[in-house]
Amino acid sequence: MADIFEELESDVQSYARSFPVVFDQAEGAYLYDTDGRQYLDFLAGAGTLNYGHNHPILKQALLDYISSNGITHGLDMHTVAKERFLQALQTHVFEPRGLEYTVQFTGPTGTNAVEAALKLARNITGRHNVIAFTNGFHGVSLGAMAATGNSHHRDAAGMPLSGVTPMPFDGYLGEEVDSAVILEKMIDDPSSGVDRPAAVIVETVQGEGGLNAASMRWLREIHRICKRRDILLIVDDIQAGCGRTGTFFSFEPADIRPDIVTLSKSLSGYGLPLAVTLFRPELDQWKPGEHNGTFRGNNHAFVTATRALETFWSDDAFAADVKARSVQLLDGLESIAARSSGALERKGRGLMQGLSCPDGETATAIARACFGRGLVIETSGSEGQVVKCLCPLIISEQELGDGLDILQHSALEILGKQIRRAS
Amino acid sequence: MADIFEELESDVQSYARSFPVVFDQAEGAYLYDTDGRQYLDFLAGAGTLNYGHNHPILKQALLDYISSNGITHGLDMHTVAKERFLQALQTHVFEPRGLEYTVQFTGPTGTNAVEAALKLARNITGRHNVIAFTNGFHGVSLGAMAATGNSHHRDAAGMPLSGVTPMPFDGYLGEEVDSAVILEKMIDDPSSGVDRPAAVIVETVQGEGGLNAASMRWLREIHRICKRRDILLIVDDIQAGCGRTGTFFSFEPADIRPDIVTLSKSLSGYGLPLAVTLFRPELDQWKPGEHNGTFRGNNHAFVTATRALETFWSDDAFAADVKARSVQLLDGLESIAARSSGALERKGRGLMQGLSCPDGETATAIARACFGRGLVIETSGSEGQVVKCLCPLIISEQELGDGLDILQHSALEILGKQIRRAS
Amino acid sequence: MADIFEELESDVQSYARSFPVVFDQAEGAYLYDTDGRQYLDFLAGAGTLNYGHNHPILKQALLDYISSNGITHGLDMHTVAKERFLQALQTHVFEPRGLEYTVQFTGPTGTNAVEAALKLARNITGRHNVIAFTNGFHGVSLGAMAATGNSHHRDAAGMPLSGVTPMPFDGYLGEEVDSAVILEKMIDDPSSGVDRPAAVIVETVQGEGGLNAASMRWLREIHRICKRRDILLIVDDIQAGCGRTGTFFSFEPADIRPDIVTLSKSLSGYGLPLAVTLFRPELDQWKPGEHNGTFRGNNHAFVTATRALETFWSDDAFAADVKARSVQLLDGLESIAARSSGALERKGRGLMQGLSCPDGETATAIARACFGRGLVIETSGSEGQVVKCLCPLIISEQELGDGLDILQHSALEILGKQIRRAS
Amino acid sequence: MADIFEELESDVQSYARSFPVVFDQAEGAYLYDTDGRQYLDFLAGAGTLNYGHNHPILKQALLDYISSNGITHGLDMHTVAKERFLQALQTHVFEPRGLEYTVQFTGPTGTNAVEAALKLARNITGRHNVIAFTNGFHGVSLGAMAATGNSHHRDAAGMPLSGVTPMPFDGYLGEEVDSAVILEKMIDDPSSGVDRPAAVIVETVQGEGGLNAASMRWLREIHRICKRRDILLIVDDIQAGCGRTGTFFSFEPADIRPDIVTLSKSLSGYGLPLAVTLFRPELDQWKPGEHNGTFRGNNHAFVTATRALETFWSDDAFAADVKARSVQLLDGLESIAARSSGALERKGRGLMQGLSCPDGETATAIARACFGRGLVIETSGSEGQVVKCLCPLIISEQELGDGLDILQHSALEILGKQIRRAS
Repeated sequence: MADIFEELESDVQSYARSFPVVFDQAEGAYLYDTDGRQYLDFLAGAGTLNYGHNHPILKQALLDYISSNGITHGLDMHTVAKERFLQALQTHVFEPRGLEYTVQFTGPTGTNAVEAALKLARNITGRHNVIAFTNGFHGVSLGAMAATGNSHHRDAAGMPLSGVTPMPFDGYLGEEVDSAVILEKMIDDPSSGVDRPAAVIVETVQGEGGLNAASMRWLREIHRICKRRDILLIVDDIQAGCGRTGTFFSFEPADIRPDIVTLSKSLSGYGLPLAVTLFRPELDQWKPGEHNGTFRGNNHAFVTATRALETFWSDDAFAADVKARSVQLLDGLESIAARSSGALERKGRGLMQGLSCPDGETATAIARACFGRGLVIETSGSEGQVVKCLCPLIISEQELGDGLDILQHSALEILGKQIRRAS
Repeated sequence: MADIFEELESDVQSYARSFPVVFDQAEGAYLYDTDGRQYLDFLAGAGTLNYGHNHPILKQALLDYISSNGITHGLDMHTVAKERFLQALQTHVFEPRGLEYTVQFTGPTGTNAVEAALKLARNITGRHNVIAFTNGFHGVSLGAMAATGNSHHRDAAGMPLSGVTPMPFDGYLGEEVDSAVILEKMIDDPSSGVDRPAAVIVETVQGEGGLNAASMRWLREIHRICKRRDILLIVDDIQAGCGRTGTFFSFEPADIRPDIVTLSKSLSGYGLPLAVTLFRPELDQWKPGEHNGTFRGNNHAFVTATRALETFWSDDAFAADVKARSVQLLDGLESIAARSSGALERKGRGLMQGLSCPDGETATAIARACFGRGLVIETSGSEGQVVKCLCPLIISEQELGDGLDILQHSALEILGKQIRRAS
Repeated sequence: MADIFEELESDVQSYARSFPVVFDQAEGAYLYDTDGRQYLDFLAGAGTLNYGHNHPILKQALLDYISSNGITHGLDMHTVAKERFLQALQTHVFEPRGLEYTVQFTGPTGTNAVEAALKLARNITGRHNVIAFTNGFHGVSLGAMAATGNSHHRDAAGMPLSGVTPMPFDGYLGEEVDSAVILEKMIDDPSSGVDRPAAVIVETVQGEGGLNAASMRWLREIHRICKRRDILLIVDDIQAGCGRTGTFFSFEPADIRPDIVTLSKSLSGYGLPLAVTLFRPELDQWKPGEHNGTFRGNNHAFVTATRALETFWSDDAFAADVKARSVQLLDGLESIAARSSGALERKGRGLMQGLSCPDGETATAIARACFGRGLVIETSGSEGQVVKCLCPLIISEQELGDGLDILQHSALEILGKQIRRAS
Repeated sequence: MADIFEELESDVQSYARSFPVVFDQAEGAYLYDTDGRQYLDFLAGAGTLNYGHNHPILKQALLDYISSNGITHGLDMHTVAKERFLQALQTHVFEPRGLEYTVQFTGPTGTNAVEAALKLARNITGRHNVIAFTNGFHGVSLGAMAATGNSHHRDAAGMPLSGVTPMPFDGYLGEEVDSAVILEKMIDDPSSGVDRPAAVIVETVQGEGGLNAASMRWLREIHRICKRRDILLIVDDIQAGCGRTGTFFSFEPADIRPDIVTLSKSLSGYGLPLAVTLFRPELDQWKPGEHNGTFRGNNHAFVTATRALETFWSDDAFAADVKARSVQLLDGLESIAARSSGALERKGRGLMQGLSCPDGETATAIARACFGRGLVIETSGSEGQVVKCLCPLIISEQELGDGLDILQHSALEILGKQIRRAS
């Protein structure tokens, strides 16, 4: 059945190699393949399906909208669906948090939202340089890729990437060295070779980079460093935002106000392409159409996004659930790590946690063993050494427990095999 | 009602300025605003709605898929919906044309497909330079933008764009100068300052650039120049493809085989985000995941795209209709031009034609007058001087006639006012 | 005797391959090797020895200066030698021509003067792009190299060169196409992909590029195009200046005033390293030390340069001689071309003329044959196809005649051999 | 008398502002102005006059050469003077140290030697990135400038500088943090954002950067890091080489063998422009003429350089003298620092030491006070906060003592004034 994939699809595809089946249907925390086999989904669209697959409330809203011939594709024209989305964003996200942000609808991909953020920062400040961090991932179009650390992606550019200076992320140089101090020193030194930056772009938890979670103290330091020097702080909240760490924006616990925020992935709530770049109103110096894109008015996504905000973010119940599940996940992972004789280490924050393995081979072996037991889970990190749990946020206590059991069995099995092989 | 737009949306939005209403529903060639007013759509999502708004056959397929909990978001995993799309592409597009292309699912935007094409070309050849043409438009992420001519977009980068050498498009230097000859000479001269290119990227009809249509002879020349020198030819068929000029690929009448082709816009058939990069199988030198993106598995788009290919491209009937409407459009525009005392000139090819005006102000005034009469139509070109007709391809003879009538009245009204004002 | 060269010197050396002897002494138009053999010098330090080798007047001035412990190395401090040089430049060069230029002493190489010119232009205008021409040569440090057409040099960068758009030089596209028109159109078109330039950099006669001489009309057009658009015109007069074409600056016959002029090569008059960048006083927006360099105060060169200006440029006699020799050279080369059955074509202007051959091999063979007869002469051009006569300007009628005789015998001999071989 | 400077010379000049007199003659460690006033020279051409001004032995060699009509300007042709220089380099420099280096004659400026080194490294490795260090200075042509830390110079480029990643120099992050560890970690991490470098370029003592002296341990670490990863180590020994730190090459005490070394400044021994790039013979992958330059055959400089090597480097006497003077300088500076109540700190190594002041204003005031007492001395460092002693290496014990006395009086005077002002 998979012949046409073999025949036509480019070798660039990657997830299909880890999960060599053909998926057909999905609901909640489960995927189903063409043979009807069920898989618990700890990948969740790489963080795109925070509310699970085909959530019934969002589904109904979408079916109603399509049935009534609502505008599907609206470019950047005003539509009723977009109006309602903006209203929901204002009511359920910005106002409760005291935030004032202008909303730019970019092309409906995270990388495009990042490209817009970088352009805006460079144009406003008149500076070309941007600080990005080790192990950061911001996309693979040329501008965003320059801010992405991974050489697997960078080398594919076929030309040097410019305009970005990499600096060590929180904890990168060990606990003794505060990388915020290094950043501040090199930015302030007129002879450091680091050109005065337009912006600093940061993820609060580096999803692709291996679930490195910045401390709130460090984030506040970065925020302070930027503020005092008229450097714009961009938080790329594409993977960590939309509730993944327990609050709508991942930076809320740090009590900071980034100048620019990018959102995508789970924003539509249903897996539909959508991305926005948010920024302080004073920064809205765009000229009409300067940054455009055919699909920046994906109204189906507006419809599900609106319903998602109304359903999950009109009170604190959902956030409380996420926090409870986060504790359950943390405990479960710590428990597995404790049984690993020091081989595994828990990493991450909220429902964005995982297990750091001795190397990428071990992590891959564990993920494969999980898949054999019906759990879809992936690895991340510079060497692919981190098994990453990105379950839907709506997962039940039972489902999360089931997944952790599979993960524990698989991890201990693989580690056991390695020990036997070594001895 | 539009207060929330004013309050929250970035000034970067542009089309909403031309059409200051809130759209609600749409069907076929018509848009409807919140007051129920009907507008004939000669913009069609900037060429994204070749089969019109919410085509009933595609709509039903999408409703069925969603209702049955089909996979919505599949990353690059194998899904039934993707499999069917690949099969339809093979059966209805590649095989009848004797084409062998590998399919890369990029992020679901045109600019992302272009980024992938440029990376691939640079990586395979080990050369960084790419030739692009005056007035070309290929997107606004950093890599694609370097190949885009428009300074309105380029200047927004906030940093120099590199890796692309601009060359004159067909006809750019007048009828006496063959710009293909210049290209060949400058590429061959080891001392011209033009670094040996990895690729030439070209649109057969420049949509955003002002409906400049390359001649088939010139396209063949460019193809020949590339082939003989191991330079890859990329046809960016994002706007001109999917039937817009009367054949599925716009380059078919030139009888050439580009090495790489980008498709997006009307590919999903329903206005849903989708983009692919096609290339000769030998060029598939991607490593797994090198070029990735969260929404490269937009299965809703696969479903409508599959049904669109089956519905419109399984025989020649649709293409014949498009050709008939193209002739009607050409005749209509020539007729308007003939009454304009030389002020207007017809341009373009297929259902991608328009009227070149003396300046951008005139073109804008005509488009506004059209909107007052219930016709949504936009301008393009380096100075916005071309009124661009991008009606849905499924438009009826009557509807096209209605639109042309509105255009004629509006154009002659505006030109008449100008003459009166001048005298 | 040449063993140490073989042992230690890098393969990057090139002229020594053409002239495989060890030179020891030199005087006037003649070089002498270690065996005492005499060579007539039609290379003259690649245009650095306009007044011949070790001119006795300059030599005496230098000997006196050194003997009296005059400052040798002065950084950019004020010295008596520099003061006298500035005074001589003012008196003998600027004032008689009604020119007002500020003088910047750059590092003592042509490429450094070009780097300074490009920086200044970019800084003043706030634009990064610079227009350079096909077959232009401006140096091989990274900034100047970006403006150099030759891929032999460009490819050695090991990274893409950016910030320069190449455009066709005068005559590059044949006599029918005016490349100034193309330049003007592409600069003015906001959608051409050519970013608005800071400057246009041009040689009036392209020495390394193959003795392509721009017409005065074309130079005036380029000047006009720049002036009207606030684009700076840089004339790189490093090879063609200092009298090489019969006037001190090569652009004098065009009656234009470039905004910036670079001089080096024959400026010191004695072959000593010296370079200056001249510009309109209003453009002197340098901050102290922004562009620096250890050897920008080469006082030995100031001494010989001062004496050279006093000796050769205080009246018109020398310029008249150069013009007479130029006519002699032109007649001689035309005569050789006339006997070549169309194989050879005269090119260039002033004492910067040569013979264009059918290919680089022929030109090299002719140059080698000349060397066998005691004439040092080199080739240039994109394929090395032009035999280039760069004799000292102080050459006598007899000496020039001798050289032309050797060139004629060698050229006809080589062409004759080719004909015999072909038949 | 200085009117012509005011009238014609660009504001880019800088040293003349510090020393507002016109210098006329010089000998040994002394400069003389037009009024016959004598100045002790602790600047020495910014490290170009290691053997003092107009050293009589070198002077005689130069006078003899000029008088005999020796070749002055030789391009890259073989000449007797170049042959003797290569032989002297082999005999007196390479052989005694067991070094095997190929010699490339670049344009006769330090920045040109650096440009050649960077090109070679990029070409050989096929990588574009180069690691440079905070506060490094390598020149101001575009390629070298990208590796230079100082924003005063960098910002003058008028365009982004690319291809270089800045990393902290030894000691930059305080004594607790080993910056070699950071370098190694970021180079090895495939996800750090630091592209795998072609080369690391380093000064062992940063002259312009403020006399920061790398430890031998750190240099060995950098060497080891490079060697194990096939990254080329470039030591820019332009200012610290030719004996300045007590050994011919400044890296000798570290017992390392850089892959590439750049030399200039004091290489000619007489202040004449000369520069070479040395590299392991296996790296000589240049094609003929790829990196060229008009003045790369400055034979006067070959003559004085040869005589300098023969005079000062044929035995260990000179090096022993330099070490004795270095100790005297160190003691003198420590003594001044000890009397400064902690305001001043000694920095540097060999005869490349100085006093770090609380700020640039203090350093400038001290240098000015010195000049008032007949001592020419300058500042360096990111804020100009370091008073830099760069006396000729041939300075006598008495002369060095005189200079230290002036420095001590001036420093304590300025610090005293500041204390009085503050109280």
